[in-house]
Amino acid sequence: KINADRLWDSLREMAGIGPGVAGGNNRQTVTDEDGEGRHLFRKWCEDAGLTMGVDTMGNMFMTRPGTDPDALPVYVGSHLDTQPTGGKYDGVLGVLGGLELVRTLNDLGVKTRHPIVVTNWTNEEGTRFAPAMLASGVFAGIHEQDWAYERTDAKGRKFGDELARIGWKGKEQVGARKMHAFFELHIEQGPILEAEGRDIGVVTHGQGLSWTQVTITGKEAHTGSTPMPMRRNAGLGMAKVLQLVDEIAWSHKPDAVGAAGHIDVHPNSRNVIPGKVVFTVDFRSPNLAVIEDMEKRLKEGARKICDEMELGIEFEKVGGFDPVEFDETCVTAIRNAAERLGYSHRNIISGAGHDACWINRVAPTAMVMCPCVDGLSHNEAEEITREWAAAGAEVLMHAVVETAEI
Amino acid sequence: KINADRLWDSLREMAGIGPGVAGGNNRQTVTDEDGEGRHLFRKWCEDAGLTMGVDTMGNMFMTRPGTDPDALPVYVGSHLDTQPTGGKYDGVLGVLGGLELVRTLNDLGVKTRHPIVVTNWTNEEGTRFAPAMLASGVFAGIHEQDWAYERTDAKGRKFGDELARIGWKGKEQVGARKMHAFFELHIEQGPILEAEGRDIGVVTHGQGLSWTQVTITGKEAHTGSTPMPMRRNAGLGMAKVLQLVDEIAWSHKPDAVGAAGHIDVHPNSRNVIPGKVVFTVDFRSPNLAVIEDMEKRLKEGARKICDEMELGIEFEKVGGFDPVEFDETCVTAIRNAAERLGYSHRNIISGAGHDACWINRVAPTAMVMCPCVDGLSHNEAEEITREWAAAGAEVLMHAVVETAEI
Ligand SMILES: NC(=O)NCCC(=O)O
Ligand SMILES: NC(=O)NCCC(=O)O
Repeated sequence: KINADRLWDSLREMAGIGPGVAGGNNRQTVTDEDGEGRHLFRKWCEDAGLTMGVDTMGNMFMTRPGTDPDALPVYVGSHLDTQPTGGKYDGVLGVLGGLELVRTLNDLGVKTRHPIVVTNWTNEEGTRFAPAMLASGVFAGIHEQDWAYERTDAKGRKFGDELARIGWKGKEQVGARKMHAFFELHIEQGPILEAEGRDIGVVTHGQGLSWTQVTITGKEAHTGSTPMPMRRNAGLGMAKVLQLVDEIAWSHKPDAVGAAGHIDVHPNSRNVIPGKVVFTVDFRSPNLAVIEDMEKRLKEGARKICDEMELGIEFEKVGGFDPVEFDETCVTAIRNAAERLGYSHRNIISGAGHDACWINRVAPTAMVMCPCVDGLSHNEAEEITREWAAAGAEVLMHAVVETAEI
Repeated sequence: KINADRLWDSLREMAGIGPGVAGGNNRQTVTDEDGEGRHLFRKWCEDAGLTMGVDTMGNMFMTRPGTDPDALPVYVGSHLDTQPTGGKYDGVLGVLGGLELVRTLNDLGVKTRHPIVVTNWTNEEGTRFAPAMLASGVFAGIHEQDWAYERTDAKGRKFGDELARIGWKGKEQVGARKMHAFFELHIEQGPILEAEGRDIGVVTHGQGLSWTQVTITGKEAHTGSTPMPMRRNAGLGMAKVLQLVDEIAWSHKPDAVGAAGHIDVHPNSRNVIPGKVVFTVDFRSPNLAVIEDMEKRLKEGARKICDEMELGIEFEKVGGFDPVEFDETCVTAIRNAAERLGYSHRNIISGAGHDACWINRVAPTAMVMCPCVDGLSHNEAEEITREWAAAGAEVLMHAVVETAEI
C-alpha cells in the first residue's frame, strides 16, 4: 500500500507552483513556473535517494538503482507541465505517483532487480508549442530535435531557446536510454470510469489525433463603409468551417470527436473586417481510417467554402499520431495488479494523447487510469479524490514491481 | 489654392511615426507613438503661429486668432490615432488638411473674422478602447468623462491612466468650448467616389452604428477525451452567431452592413474546448429602424442558438450612435466650394463614424470626403492620390473661410 496522504500532500504542494486564476494551474511548458516545479520535483527525488539525468530536450530521469547491473530500467512517469487554465492532476499525478511508489519501496526496504526511473517529460500539453508530447516524441525518434527546438509560441519565442533560458536543457543525448518497460498513470480526463463507478481503467488503446492548422485569408477593410458584396471576411469563412468540423465529427459518432480550441483573428479590431484567421482543428478517433476521412473532408469542404467566398485557405499539419495499441504483457501486469488489489476495473481507450503513446514505439508500454469528477479536464476545476489517486498509484506500483522483479 | 506638395510631405512625415508592418501605420490611441505624433503636430502648428489648448480628454485645439474678439471660432480637424493595421490617411488627412489651410492663409496673409481652430480628437478609432469617437463623444456630452477614463483595453489598462502616462491629459475642461461651426475632411473609406470618378463627396448624412459585445460561455474541457454529446463548445456557438450576423445584415440589403472584427477565445489552447468567447458585433445602417431591428434579431437569434446548445450568453452595448443629418448651411458651404473650384461632386452618406457625428450635436457641422483607392480603409494598403488630397483640402479651406468670414 502506498501512503495516500503523502501523495496527496505532494500533489497539493506542486499545485502551489504556477497557480491558475480559478483553483487550478497555469504552469505551461518551459516557463519560469515550469522551472520551479522541476526544482521541487528534483529535491523530492534526491531526498528519496534518486539520482538525476536530464537530456537535451529537458526530459528528467530520476533513477533508483536495481540489484542487477545488467538489467534495463523500468520507467514510470508523465509530465509536470499544464494547460494555461489546467488542472492539478493532469500529468502531475503520473509523475508524483511514480515518486510515491519509490518512497513506498524505500519505506518497505524493497529492492528490485531492474532499476526504476521516475520521468518528467517536457511539453506534453502542446498548448504553448505544438505538437503535444513533443519531447517524448523526440525521445522516441518521431521528431528531429532541431525541428523541435524551432517550434515557436504565439509570441514567436522558440522552444529550444526557452528550454535553455529556464536552465533545463541537459547534456544527455535524447533517446539514448533503453527501457525494459514504461508505465504511465493518468487521470481519465473523460466520464466513463466515474459513471460506471470503477476504480481503475486498464488502458488497452489510445485514440489517434490529427491537428490541422488552418489559415484563411480575406481582406482587411472597414466594417462600416465597405458594402456587403465587396467584403472578403475571413472570420465568416472560419465560422462556416467550424460548423463543418462539428458536422464531420458527428457523422462518425460515436467513433470520433472534433473541435477547434485555438483561434487567432487578425487584426482583431472591432471595426476591421478580419483579413486573416488562424485556427487549429483537433480531430480524434481510435480508428485510423476515420481520422483520414475527417482530414480529407475538412480539406475539401473548407476549400469549397473559401472558394465560394473568394477567401484564401492553407492547411498545415501541426500534430498527429496514429491510434495506439499498448503492449499486452504490460497491460496484463496492470490488469493483474488491479485484480489482486481488489479494485474494480475495465478496459478503456485513452481519449487523450499521452507520452506513453510515443514511448510505446520504443519500449513495452501501458497505462493506468483513475476517474476524474464529471470527466472534466483541461479546466481549472479538474478534480479527483484522494482514494482514486491512491488506487491508481497502488496499481501502478504493483505493475512496476512485478515488471522490475523483486 | 493650397500647397499640395506641402500637405503631401506632412502626411508622409506623420506616417513615419508608428509605422505598421505593411506600409501603413500602427499609431493606436494614447500609446507612445500617439504621443510622438502629437508632438510633431504641435510643433508644426506652433511654427504656423497657432497656440495650443489641451482638454482633460487629450483633445488638442490649435488656435489661429480672428479679427473679431467676440466671434466664436470655426473648428476644423479629425484624428491622428490609427487602427493597429491602419492607413496613412484615415483621420490624418483631416487634421493636416486643417493645418494646411492655415498655412495657406498665412502665406496669403488672409485674416478671418472668426478664429480658426485645428483640432485633433483623441481615440476616434475605438480599436483599443471602445467606443469609437470617445473623446469627441465626451466633448459633446454624450459620455461622462469618468466613464471614459475607466474604459479598458485588452490588457486591462485604463484609458485615463494611459492618457496621463503619455503626458497628454490637459487641464482645460472638456466640452467648455463653444463653436461657430465644425468641418471635417476625411477619406471616403468606401468605393463610391472612385467608381464614379468624382473628386468630392458632400456628406449629407452619416450611418448609425451599433456595437454589441457578445460573451458566450460553455465549459472548458479536453478536446480528445470529452464525448461529443457532453460538449458545451462556446466557439461553435460563436460560429453559428457569426453566420446569423451575416444573414441579418444581408436581409436589409442594401441598407445595412454587419460583421464581427474582434474575437477573443478562452483559453485559446489547441486541446481545450473553448469555455468562453467574447466578440463584438458591428451593425450599421443609415436607417435607425433597421439598426434596431438588427439588434433585436441578433439578441433573439443568438439566445436561441445558445439555449439549444446549453451555452450561456450575455450582451453588452459597447458603442452606438444614431444616423446623423449634417447642418444644411455647412453642407451647402461645402457644396458651393466644390462647385466654385470646379470639382466634380455628389452627395454621399458616410459609412463610417466620425468625430463630426458627435460634434454635430453641439455645433453646426459638415464633412468633405475625397476618394480612396478601391474603397479600402482600415488596411495598411489604404491609398489616395496627392490630387485627391489637395482637392479635399481646398474645398475644406473654401468652406471654412466662407464660414469664418474674411
Ligand atoms: N493528456 C493530455 O491532456 N495530453 C495533451 C495532449 C492531448 O491533447 O491529448
Ligand atoms: N472613420 C473611421 O474609421 N472611424 C472609426 C469608427 C468607425 O468604426 O466608424
